[in-house]
Amino acid sequence: MGKNRLEAFSDGVIAIIITIMVLELKVPHGDTLGVLAPLASVFMSYILSFIYIGIYWNNHHHMIHACKRVTGGILWANLHLLFWLSLFPFVTGWMGENHFAAIPSALYGGVLLAAAIAYWILQQTIIAAQGVDSPLKAAIGTDWKGKLSPVLYALAILSTFFWPWVAQALYVAVALLWLVPDRRIEKSLRSDGT
Amino acid sequence: MGKNRLEAFSDGVIAIIITIMVLELKVPHGDTLGVLAPLASVFMSYILSFIYIGIYWNNHHHMIHACKRVTGGILWANLHLLFWLSLFPFVTGWMGENHFAAIPSALYGGVLLAAAIAYWILQQTIIAAQGVDSPLKAAIGTDWKGKLSPVLYALAILSTFFWPWVAQALYVAVALLWLVPDRRIEKSLRSDGT
Amino acid sequence: MGKNRLEAFSDGVIAIIITIMVLELKVPHGDTLGVLAPLASVFMSYILSFIYIGIYWNNHHHMIHACKRVTGGILWANLHLLFWLSLFPFVTGWMGENHFAAIPSALYGGVLLAAAIAYWILQQTIIAAQGVDSPLKAAIGTDWKGKLSPVLYALAILSTFFWPWVAQALYVAVALLWLVPDRRIEKSLRSDGT
Amino acid sequence: MGKNRLEAFSDGVIAIIITIMVLELKVPHGDTLGVLAPLASVFMSYILSFIYIGIYWNNHHHMIHACKRVTGGILWANLHLLFWLSLFPFVTGWMGENHFAAIPSALYGGVLLAAAIAYWILQQTIIAAQGVDSPLKAAIGTDWKGKLSPVLYALAILSTFFWPWVAQALYVAVALLWLVPDRRIEKSLRSDGT
Repeated sequence: MGKNRLEAFSDGVIAIIITIMVLELKVPHGDTLGVLAPLASVFMSYILSFIYIGIYWNNHHHMIHACKRVTGGILWANLHLLFWLSLFPFVTGWMGENHFAAIPSALYGGVLLAAAIAYWILQQTIIAAQGVDSPLKAAIGTDWKGKLSPVLYALAILSTFFWPWVAQALYVAVALLWLVPDRRIEKSLRSDGT
Repeated sequence: MGKNRLEAFSDGVIAIIITIMVLELKVPHGDTLGVLAPLASVFMSYILSFIYIGIYWNNHHHMIHACKRVTGGILWANLHLLFWLSLFPFVTGWMGENHFAAIPSALYGGVLLAAAIAYWILQQTIIAAQGVDSPLKAAIGTDWKGKLSPVLYALAILSTFFWPWVAQALYVAVALLWLVPDRRIEKSLRSDGT
Repeated sequence: MGKNRLEAFSDGVIAIIITIMVLELKVPHGDTLGVLAPLASVFMSYILSFIYIGIYWNNHHHMIHACKRVTGGILWANLHLLFWLSLFPFVTGWMGENHFAAIPSALYGGVLLAAAIAYWILQQTIIAAQGVDSPLKAAIGTDWKGKLSPVLYALAILSTFFWPWVAQALYVAVALLWLVPDRRIEKSLRSDGT
Repeated sequence: MGKNRLEAFSDGVIAIIITIMVLELKVPHGDTLGVLAPLASVFMSYILSFIYIGIYWNNHHHMIHACKRVTGGILWANLHLLFWLSLFPFVTGWMGENHFAAIPSALYGGVLLAAAIAYWILQQTIIAAQGVDSPLKAAIGTDWKGKLSPVLYALAILSTFFWPWVAQALYVAVALLWLVPDRRIEKSLRSDGT
């Protein structure tokens, strides 16, 4: 399978996820500023998830760029990642509508954690398919961001039961960590002349 | 008609189907774990359908890859397949919300069966268009999976009236059967140097 | 503007329209065959609209295929067509939920008529941009289907006030008329070696 | 990052936004013309937003066409623009359902203003990345439309509190201003032989 179709399909699914998330922002009844107030937390969780999906789209692109051949394993590891990303609209809406309450925030973190693990599985699957001289393995280096994020998500999930806002702070912190595009892969690929 | 646009359009429709299915997972009221419980069966049916749509996307790609020229007949056979796939969100939601009750499970199987028949019609239409030396015909070989699946779907539909859970087991079994990508076509095409 | 992006954007919009139409088929409460009965007319109108959107996608492809250069006028004529197509989910749902009652059926016909006119405007805009030797003009020939369809839609709209089912019969008849892909353009283009 | 994927992703998101907006046009209960009447303002706001999204798609295409290399900054400036565009369905629905009342109309103008600023930021980011000989900078010239629009949006927002219909007139006026595709960039690029 050519990687173009994998890329196009993933782009399509990610574009739909990022856009249908806004449907959780239900049009309120009434025409006053007051009716918008209860939507503030839904809106804030929408912004957070929009950034996360943007980060996944960006990093996914860099990763697939470093992958020449698509195997069956890569294809299913990719669908597994898309599955967890597809749950973003649900958990974003639930967390937002409940004003960042403990359990919805923990579930949000659970989906973030699952997506991070799915991303890592996809990465390892590509590296395994590329063999010993894997350009992706060379490109990601120590992958400290990829290793730190799941730990922070787990801490955030735990913290929802004690200080719910620490969880939100951690979700924002991890997003900021990734907001910078992964220059390592870009750099490594550029030095290869690709 | 070039096959690229057929492929792009099919990918778009399949990407939308797989993503809007999650909209049947309605955000519940309340912020406790208890409000999630009734969603468990919707979530399980979502996972099952996600895998099925993934399988169709994968196999569809391999089939179209083996098709060089798109005729009007192929185009409409393809739209016919997309029609049945487009009913997945509806039957998935209905089966999930009714906790795998008999009639919704039978209808789910009916759509699976119709999609399998539509897939077979598309396959035969491509083979007919390719003529005697059809590479697709050579590639699919005995097509035992394609012949067995409809039989298992029919058995599952019947079983919903006696032992509903047998139907679910059969749906999962057929999914597992197909989860392995169709290596026959891949192999056959690779030996052709394409 | 290259025609590729126009084609990709139109494909995307049409793929979304054809798929979100199914969201009008609301998952019913209850798990009996009886709860499906009221959905029968929604389902039938969904089939009809699915075929119409499929026809538009197919014919649109052939038309854009015969168009080499995209002008600002073509772009807006195309968006105008997409606008009317985007109303299909609404009128399909309204007609279906009201069991093909007179006024919803007339509005359905009105959108069909407007889409046909928008298609004709797009066609004329492309022909005008191509100048005297327009390959599209040569390809469509007498365009009897394009001329007959709006007349039949208008008749159908009128008939909704006397015999509503005549309108449905006419909608089905026009769909059957177009179901055969437009071989004239295909043939004409092929003889040009494109 | 190649600009093709940026373009394809943006096209996907814009195609979804323009299409899901129609979901705010809820299918009414009843089969009389009377039940459509309350939808008139939702329909009018849908037309307005459809044109705006069409304008953004068109101008976005011309801008990206003049951009050869995509940096991380361009990517995030582009996602920032898509974020504001993704709010169109919400504000369109809210303004339409409240018959162009003051506060929903002001919020609509606020999203128009934010999108215009996001577009300007994206433009400046591309120009900065291109350096002193930026073809985009040369192409946009004085950019009087880009400078006038935010001023008119701000005036419209203010006017909602005194004469709400002036705001609507201004929104229509700015749309008409942009409806003509940006020939400057097209012209400039053509003279470069691109």
